[in-house]
Amino acid sequence: MARLEKIKYKPISVRDLLVEMKDLSELMIDLAYSAALFNSRPLAEEVIEMEKQVDNLAYLLDMSAMLAARDAKDAESLVAVAVVAGATDKISDAAGDIATIVLREIGIHPIVREAFEKVEEQLTRTEIQKGSVWANRTLRDLELAPKMGVDIIAIRRNKEFIINPEHDELVLEGDVVIARGAPMGIEEFERLAGKTLMSAGS
Amino acid sequence: MARLEKIKYKPISVRDLLVEMKDLSELMIDLAYSAALFNSRPLAEEVIEMEKQVDNLAYLLDMSAMLAARDAKDAESLVAVAVVAGATDKISDAAGDIATIVLREIGIHPIVREAFEKVEEQLTRTEIQKGSVWANRTLRDLELAPKMGVDIIAIRRNKEFIINPEHDELVLEGDVVIARGAPMGIEEFERLAGKTLMSAGS
Repeated sequence: MARLEKIKYKPISVRDLLVEMKDLSELMIDLAYSAALFNSRPLAEEVIEMEKQVDNLAYLLDMSAMLAARDAKDAESLVAVAVVAGATDKISDAAGDIATIVLREIGIHPIVREAFEKVEEQLTRTEIQKGSVWANRTLRDLELAPKMGVDIIAIRRNKEFIINPEHDELVLEGDVVIARGAPMGIEEFERLAGKTLMSAGS
Repeated sequence: MARLEKIKYKPISVRDLLVEMKDLSELMIDLAYSAALFNSRPLAEEVIEMEKQVDNLAYLLDMSAMLAARDAKDAESLVAVAVVAGATDKISDAAGDIATIVLREIGIHPIVREAFEKVEEQLTRTEIQKGSVWANRTLRDLELAPKMGVDIIAIRRNKEFIINPEHDELVLEGDVVIARGAPMGIEEFERLAGKTLMSAGS
């Protein structure tokens, strides 16, 4: 796997890197299964985006861990950190594998769909358009959970992921939001997410 | 990795195998993180048991998928099944890696604990002793969820795993049960699980 961009070392704590890797990898599994179940390219593409991010984080974590080790005892216990980080990387790869079969349009065998049919909640990925009625509002304001039973579980802003965003997080134009909910709520969410101030007023 | 036992081919549907692999691998991740957070050998050992089971299922699935392919088109779409199965196997390996650092007593670096501290629910593994007050009762009868906020999420009976057991599932002597709940509920669960009819009557 080619890493095309040179990754700049940023001083981020090993803890923060590990938390982000763990959160991303868990979300990726859900997204990948959902992408396979609903044969969704947008979800599969998002998984691939996240896989790149996990790779970058793994690289930064390796560097940070080495800088953090001050003696042999330190280094030994940091091995545990490296193993856990490696595990999240494996999980991320696994999700990427599933996303790839969706993107390659191999065709999802009915067996796979049947195996995943117990999944009651659906996931979706939507981009907040310019002039969207949702832009510049907090998640609390949008009231998605009480109104349609939908939760925004991640926001991608350029290349940064905000996993499990807080209620006071703002949604901005150009954000890619990933939401989870019952199929009917998700349908309404997708309809409303596409609405701009102009179309809402017309 | 040595596979010591010869695995006998059993005619199980590819779908059932895939469902079990998916369910087991997801449970393993939760168990592995919990094992690392609480430095729990019993949980880590259970993850290793499950990893062996996933390996066996992967082997059976490969055979079943080959038998299921009747023509080239069939074979192509079965590739998707193999990829998804392979992904669950990778996830299972990742969980096994984390369990191994617990079992090797490398010592969990505080960073790992901090990264996982958001986990509010605790997991536990308990064996139903001979003469236990819980033996030969259904999960519904035990009323663990309403009484102590604890859910039995898996039962291991010899080498078979019952993941997300139904309410009418019986708990038998010798069963290994894995439960999830808030720390206080889990404490009570562990205390009661160890109770036998004799100690309960005395």
